[in-house]
Amino acid sequence: MSEIRFDIGSLHAAYAAGVSVANMIDTVHARIAAADDPGIFIHLAAKAQMLAQAQKLGPFDPAGRPLWGVPFAVKDNIDVAGMPTTAACAEYAYVPEHDATVVARLKAAGALVVGKTNLDQFATGLVGVRTPYPIPRNAVDASLVPGGSSSGSAVATARGIVSFALGTDTAGSGRIPAGLNNIVGLKPTVGALSAAGVVPACRTLDCISVFALTVDDAYAVFGVAAAKDAADAYSRAIKVPAFAARPPVLSVGVPAKGDLKFFGDASMQAGFETALGLLETLGCRLVEIPFSDFYATASLLYEGAWVAERYAAVRDFMDANEAAMHPVTRKIIGGARGLSAADAFKGLYALQACKAKLASAVASVDLFCVPTAPTHYALDAVLADPITTNSRLGTYTNFVNLLDMCGIAVPTGKRHDGLPMSVTLLGTAGKDWLTAALARDIHAASGLPLGATGWPQPGSALPGNIAQDQTIDLVVVGAHLSGMPLNGQLRDLGAQFSRVTKTTPAYRLYALAGQSVPKPGLVRVSRDGMRIDVEVWRLDPDAFGRFVAAIPPPLGVGTIELEDGSAAKGFLVETAGLTDASDISAYGGWRSFVRCDQERANLLAT
Amino acid sequence: MSEIRFDIGSLHAAYAAGVSVANMIDTVHARIAAADDPGIFIHLAAKAQMLAQAQKLGPFDPAGRPLWGVPFAVKDNIDVAGMPTTAACAEYAYVPEHDATVVARLKAAGALVVGKTNLDQFATGLVGVRTPYPIPRNAVDASLVPGGSSSGSAVATARGIVSFALGTDTAGSGRIPAGLNNIVGLKPTVGALSAAGVVPACRTLDCISVFALTVDDAYAVFGVAAAKDAADAYSRAIKVPAFAARPPVLSVGVPAKGDLKFFGDASMQAGFETALGLLETLGCRLVEIPFSDFYATASLLYEGAWVAERYAAVRDFMDANEAAMHPVTRKIIGGARGLSAADAFKGLYALQACKAKLASAVASVDLFCVPTAPTHYALDAVLADPITTNSRLGTYTNFVNLLDMCGIAVPTGKRHDGLPMSVTLLGTAGKDWLTAALARDIHAASGLPLGATGWPQPGSALPGNIAQDQTIDLVVVGAHLSGMPLNGQLRDLGAQFSRVTKTTPAYRLYALAGQSVPKPGLVRVSRDGMRIDVEVWRLDPDAFGRFVAAIPPPLGVGTIELEDGSAAKGFLVETAGLTDASDISAYGGWRSFVRCDQERANLLAT
Repeated sequence: MSEIRFDIGSLHAAYAAGVSVANMIDTVHARIAAADDPGIFIHLAAKAQMLAQAQKLGPFDPAGRPLWGVPFAVKDNIDVAGMPTTAACAEYAYVPEHDATVVARLKAAGALVVGKTNLDQFATGLVGVRTPYPIPRNAVDASLVPGGSSSGSAVATARGIVSFALGTDTAGSGRIPAGLNNIVGLKPTVGALSAAGVVPACRTLDCISVFALTVDDAYAVFGVAAAKDAADAYSRAIKVPAFAARPPVLSVGVPAKGDLKFFGDASMQAGFETALGLLETLGCRLVEIPFSDFYATASLLYEGAWVAERYAAVRDFMDANEAAMHPVTRKIIGGARGLSAADAFKGLYALQACKAKLASAVASVDLFCVPTAPTHYALDAVLADPITTNSRLGTYTNFVNLLDMCGIAVPTGKRHDGLPMSVTLLGTAGKDWLTAALARDIHAASGLPLGATGWPQPGSALPGNIAQDQTIDLVVVGAHLSGMPLNGQLRDLGAQFSRVTKTTPAYRLYALAGQSVPKPGLVRVSRDGMRIDVEVWRLDPDAFGRFVAAIPPPLGVGTIELEDGSAAKGFLVETAGLTDASDISAYGGWRSFVRCDQERANLLAT
Repeated sequence: MSEIRFDIGSLHAAYAAGVSVANMIDTVHARIAAADDPGIFIHLAAKAQMLAQAQKLGPFDPAGRPLWGVPFAVKDNIDVAGMPTTAACAEYAYVPEHDATVVARLKAAGALVVGKTNLDQFATGLVGVRTPYPIPRNAVDASLVPGGSSSGSAVATARGIVSFALGTDTAGSGRIPAGLNNIVGLKPTVGALSAAGVVPACRTLDCISVFALTVDDAYAVFGVAAAKDAADAYSRAIKVPAFAARPPVLSVGVPAKGDLKFFGDASMQAGFETALGLLETLGCRLVEIPFSDFYATASLLYEGAWVAERYAAVRDFMDANEAAMHPVTRKIIGGARGLSAADAFKGLYALQACKAKLASAVASVDLFCVPTAPTHYALDAVLADPITTNSRLGTYTNFVNLLDMCGIAVPTGKRHDGLPMSVTLLGTAGKDWLTAALARDIHAASGLPLGATGWPQPGSALPGNIAQDQTIDLVVVGAHLSGMPLNGQLRDLGAQFSRVTKTTPAYRLYALAGQSVPKPGLVRVSRDGMRIDVEVWRLDPDAFGRFVAAIPPPLGVGTIELEDGSAAKGFLVETAGLTDASDISAYGGWRSFVRCDQERANLLAT
């Protein structure tokens, strides 16, 4: 049964096909055993306990219970009734009578708690190693830190042990471990998810966050969990509209080139540049924004007054049990003892000054895009220098909650060295839906498998044929690419963008002669072939038929092989049409050729 | 020249009639001399200095400079370039190079600084006696405290020395002294007026406030002063629309009867009840709201973390110069030294909890109305027990800025003992215009003279004739009163409500027989006359003419004498129409009669 895929759509399809909850639970435990990682869970629900919970749900009912039979994990600073809450400090543990509000909402929607996951003690850290329990292993590369503080939740999700997991995110704990484990991490607007039943870190900033294998799943869980809650004075009503098409063109702020920080990690830098190229392909207009005031804001979180919130949250426990705490955690939180109330207010003033300085920049774009983490750290490096490495990991995360922004970490590809590449999209409070909508396109365009499972993204299973949803994939190469002159023909027919990808290395690309709208021709070759950049769009059969009927010679539609091993219908050129055409294969794609061609023209003009 | 009235309309009319700025300045100084109160000003501008400032304004230009030649005073915790800022602590004093942003805006609009006014040291207090300078005398009754902390500004305004004055208001310092001196105190939404150039009290809560003789003047000054200011990170853009008619019916929250606190002051309690009756007359629907959570919020201001803001503001000075401070101020601010940063955040959490509890009550009404102060205190009582008396004065003010509300203190009448009665209207952030619009009607309806000047309210000077603005006053007695069945006829004709008043004691009132809409008839009598409650409405001549033409017999329009000595056109009845009519003069007015009649009917029905 280990082959049941746990993204929610696949799991529900499996239930619909007759898989039982008992099968699912066995799969969960088989995967836990296969992971062989004692650091992921601090507490596991017994199989019988999960089964009993499932039986109360009644028969499979995904319409009535959108998370029916969906297994999830809960970071161990969030209450699940009857399971101990440790916050990764056994001496602190208590057994809550009630579920945290969010857990209760997810259970009511049919989700089943698998267990409580490990974390950086008291959610203080971004590394995932500050725990007295075994350190969870990064699901992609065990030599790296898993990221924290929601380490166990991220790893459990990346390994496909659960469909999703709850984390918390004050400084970046819902984003960093997502970025380091090739999964999606949705960090909602502060207050969108009730924090009732959460051990506070910084009460004014804490968010419950969602780890999932896909953006659709993360957003669906967010939608179920979000509600204003009288039990949390900081909760507020945030709209979670059904997923709709985002505006085709978005302005996206990115750190000005000179302000980017990768701490020497050239691979991350190159990966981020590639990711920005992907954003442009998806219709984003990039706007460079000076980032020094964002960094100044970020520094307030640990260097300023907010550490006192962490102390306020555990003061009684800490004053009586200091020796029981992890030494790094103790050092950080203990630092707040010397801070006065006047210091706290000076911190608030400093934050307000940062907000005022940043207000116009923040308002000038639809969203922001930053690297999720500036670099990957090996376990050894973090254990050798726990404070500096942790601080650096928060470069692009620490300022977010202070500025009342929402964010979503989304995989964008693999770096040159094969490690996960992730960006985080950020928006002002309430833009959760927009960040998710763009993240969804990015993830689809990445074509990445899910987490560390090897599973393909759902919906990309049957390229080139009529998909389950009756749409047909069409590979476009030239003037129909996003942003190109004929792209509107696709949109007018209701085509949906699917992803950016490449052909197998079996093609050559030509700039055709004598075209009113410049366009290329793709030709499959038996030798000296290259990988050519393409986009995949989806049309329903009627639209596809009408589109194909209208394609003028020398172009036609044939089957194109893609680098992921699939094949799809797409534009090819008749060789007869290559008279006077130039071979532009060396550019790797039409978009690169056009850009260089324009630069050349500009150069000649000056 | 002492007869120049300083409400802005009267002063500008005087300028238009040929009065010079030099005349105005002489008048200011004559009034300062006449007041014989060394406690009002800490620093005075020289006459020559004011004249020089005026000369830069060019000729009288009220359209271009709406505050042309208008004298104002500035609380001495707000910077005026070249004048020392003391915050009522000589050892703290410095001479600023630049005007506070608000002062600069007012000067640019033509206003002239008369001087810097006394205050409770470091704006910490509501009593007006916590100053090393002489205590300013209450302008209405010198045996009472003037109220603070903006004591000098309020007294200078009430005495007509200036047209308006700037105060600051963190806990109520812009409202309490207005209430105790029979003037208007507009406390804007936090951030609506820039706090750049103000010695902070609580940086997160401080507001510059405006004292004036009339609501129109306070609102006009507010409109000139309001602007988002890059120099103040807490400033924000708040709309200040031109004065328009408010909605005729408003729901107004008032403290539930059992929650009202007057500390034994029956006169204030009766005065507040009368004021609420006035609100009903003006079309307000009163809604009793439990007030315990408002009081719990209020207690946070001095009992909780916010005192640490006061310490943060003067820490360096205080740590070096503690002996120089007023003993009460020193005790209060020094109390913050023992508060930790964790305590500060616990205070923020407590406030957030109060906000969450109050959110639905606050959203349930258009505005709130509370007593400005719960009682008047004699000087001796405050000097004997400076903390308790001060704390009680803040009963209805301390919670306001914490809850991000705006407010305006407005005189409503005289209490039984002749002392000033004032209420404060409160609204959520941005409702400054609505609180002012209702306050304007209340003040007009009160018919009170301005401050301690004895000047009548402008616009009430020519009742019964065609006023300067070409409207005609009409006295209504019965079915045309606000909220009565025929009131719509007036509104349809564009009539504007002017005020509530009474006739001279020379009338009797009858309930007419045989009317489809019940209505009374007013008859002037030569003996056994009574004062009868009436309202004054204003119509333009055309509307007035058409209205009168349509009045059916036995009613007509004649001249009615009002208790303020003026006379106006209004409804009278032909004696021939009194057949079968009942004499209801003992009720004092049609509204009282109707209310009792209904109660009687209800009683008979049960």
